[in-house]
Amino acid sequence: MSKPKVVVTRQLIDEAQRILEDRKGELEIVQWNSEKPCERAWLLENAKGATGILVMLSDQVNDELLQAAGDQLKVIASFSVGTDHIERAALKKRNVRLGYTPTCLTDAVADLTVMLILMAQRRGGESMAKVIKGEWPQMPWHPLLMTGPQIRGCTVGFLGFGRIAQASLQRLLAFRIKRAIYLTSKPGQPVKEDHFNLVKTANIPIEPAQSADQIASESDVVIVGCALTPDTKHLVSTDFFKKMKKLAVIINIARGPVIDTDALVKALDQDQIFGAGLDVIENEPNIQADHPILKQPRCVLVPHIGSATIETREQMATESVENLLAGLTGKEMVNEVEL
Amino acid sequence: MSKPKVVVTRQLIDEAQRILEDRKGELEIVQWNSEKPCERAWLLENAKGATGILVMLSDQVNDELLQAAGDQLKVIASFSVGTDHIERAALKKRNVRLGYTPTCLTDAVADLTVMLILMAQRRGGESMAKVIKGEWPQMPWHPLLMTGPQIRGCTVGFLGFGRIAQASLQRLLAFRIKRAIYLTSKPGQPVKEDHFNLVKTANIPIEPAQSADQIASESDVVIVGCALTPDTKHLVSTDFFKKMKKLAVIINIARGPVIDTDALVKALDQDQIFGAGLDVIENEPNIQADHPILKQPRCVLVPHIGSATIETREQMATESVENLLAGLTGKEMVNEVEL
Repeated sequence: MSKPKVVVTRQLIDEAQRILEDRKGELEIVQWNSEKPCERAWLLENAKGATGILVMLSDQVNDELLQAAGDQLKVIASFSVGTDHIERAALKKRNVRLGYTPTCLTDAVADLTVMLILMAQRRGGESMAKVIKGEWPQMPWHPLLMTGPQIRGCTVGFLGFGRIAQASLQRLLAFRIKRAIYLTSKPGQPVKEDHFNLVKTANIPIEPAQSADQIASESDVVIVGCALTPDTKHLVSTDFFKKMKKLAVIINIARGPVIDTDALVKALDQDQIFGAGLDVIENEPNIQADHPILKQPRCVLVPHIGSATIETREQMATESVENLLAGLTGKEMVNEVEL
Repeated sequence: MSKPKVVVTRQLIDEAQRILEDRKGELEIVQWNSEKPCERAWLLENAKGATGILVMLSDQVNDELLQAAGDQLKVIASFSVGTDHIERAALKKRNVRLGYTPTCLTDAVADLTVMLILMAQRRGGESMAKVIKGEWPQMPWHPLLMTGPQIRGCTVGFLGFGRIAQASLQRLLAFRIKRAIYLTSKPGQPVKEDHFNLVKTANIPIEPAQSADQIASESDVVIVGCALTPDTKHLVSTDFFKKMKKLAVIINIARGPVIDTDALVKALDQDQIFGAGLDVIENEPNIQADHPILKQPRCVLVPHIGSATIETREQMATESVENLLAGLTGKEMVNEVEL
């Protein structure tokens, strides 16, 4: 009997690669061998006869790929939290299991959320740029020079209040914020999952909001942490910005299209809000140097590095391999998508 | 009898200006009236006959000024934490009291400390620069793209462990660091003032270090938070960097000369450490665009904005006025320097 074949569309990081190679005796391992994303033609060719495939965000998993693989395919293990690149229905139809890595990046993204809030309030990008341009010697000190709003005493509003939003709130409590409000798909209702027991134990009010309007008008910091759906696309647009406080900042660590970029540029231009901190943006990564958002000194934009810590990426790799192996043998995955 | 004269070397912020102007009936108030720092000649001329002077960091308080004022001078109120611009001995000799504003900026500086740590670890400056240059579209995703070390599980080492350092630690606990060590002027001895009851109550070890070497070799994050003295000048230099971990970052929120800048540039060049986050630097603000530190992508440098929040500066202004008024009437100041 021939060994089951697995296809892996990347060289993996240390520990994960080791776990995989430990199975060389029992598995035929075919692995893409370059720093560049895996080529589609290579994947379609090598998928043939595979029992499991470990894919990256950049690999489309659809009928074409599943058909190329064949009926023996048991598992797709995705090195990702998001599964937008995967046609779930196609997997379900063929009874192929789907593993992913949603939980291990919570801390890394929550950390980055705090970084972006502080940079937006404290003018991190703007003040760094002034130093780099050599303007520091010509900045005579005065009491309001480069000042921004302070996080102590802020009301923090969350659009979406899942695990990452709650982990961010957990950090913000130490900065002595005053109050948190959150909007979920069920406005006005208490959140179901209190992942870190904050709602129960925090010494500040943590309350459901009735509407996006309430989040806009009452928050000093707005954090976009919701999934992208037809309902949340451009949820934050001109109307929302008009209702925000002049000293408020907006943060997006979720998906770019929840914020209408043109409206954000206008809001910053017209000083309707104080600043913005974005890890994601519409049409990323196709943001050219002449993009209007990059002309806004009070907007910090980083290139989707929410989960980009060494520790997190190692854990994502390890969990992907574990999901792959569990899928081959019918065992329980670390995290499996219900199809 | 003529009204006592006070000289103020700045227009103050809202509330503080109001408190001052409320005293117009009882005081002769002479105030510098420009956005630029007060001119020395103006100050020397107007100080004549003053009972109190409210000064900024940019005003030298020395024999010359005190002599120009005259024997009736009772109080100098400085809008600052530092008092390097003030000759304390000259004040003591003349029995002039000195007020300052050391406590109200703790939160603002501690917040900035966390911002700088996260930016140094998560490559905040470097990744923002790539986006601004239009490089994002040409950054093909791979598992270690733009990754940095994660703060969770870190050992954080403090050089100096006063109120601001402890407030920073209070915030860092929420990020699940593993351990804190600190070096004070009494190595190996427990810190005297446990300002926020952290040493007593935190659920991680918080321990005195035996030496700067121990801080260097055991820390994943080093925070410079000590005063500048002959002992601490260039405390962080080539030897210190050589002992640091390759993935460690160094943060300076205290005084520039504690870190030897040339040694820091070398350490970054040679990948001896992962990154740096600086609010202060030797020879600030005279940092020209061609300064070698600005060529280091992993070094974030902001222009001494530690206390630059609107709330803090308002409080500093208010407290300065309160110190001034207390000095005139022999009452207790919010914060007075023991001369």
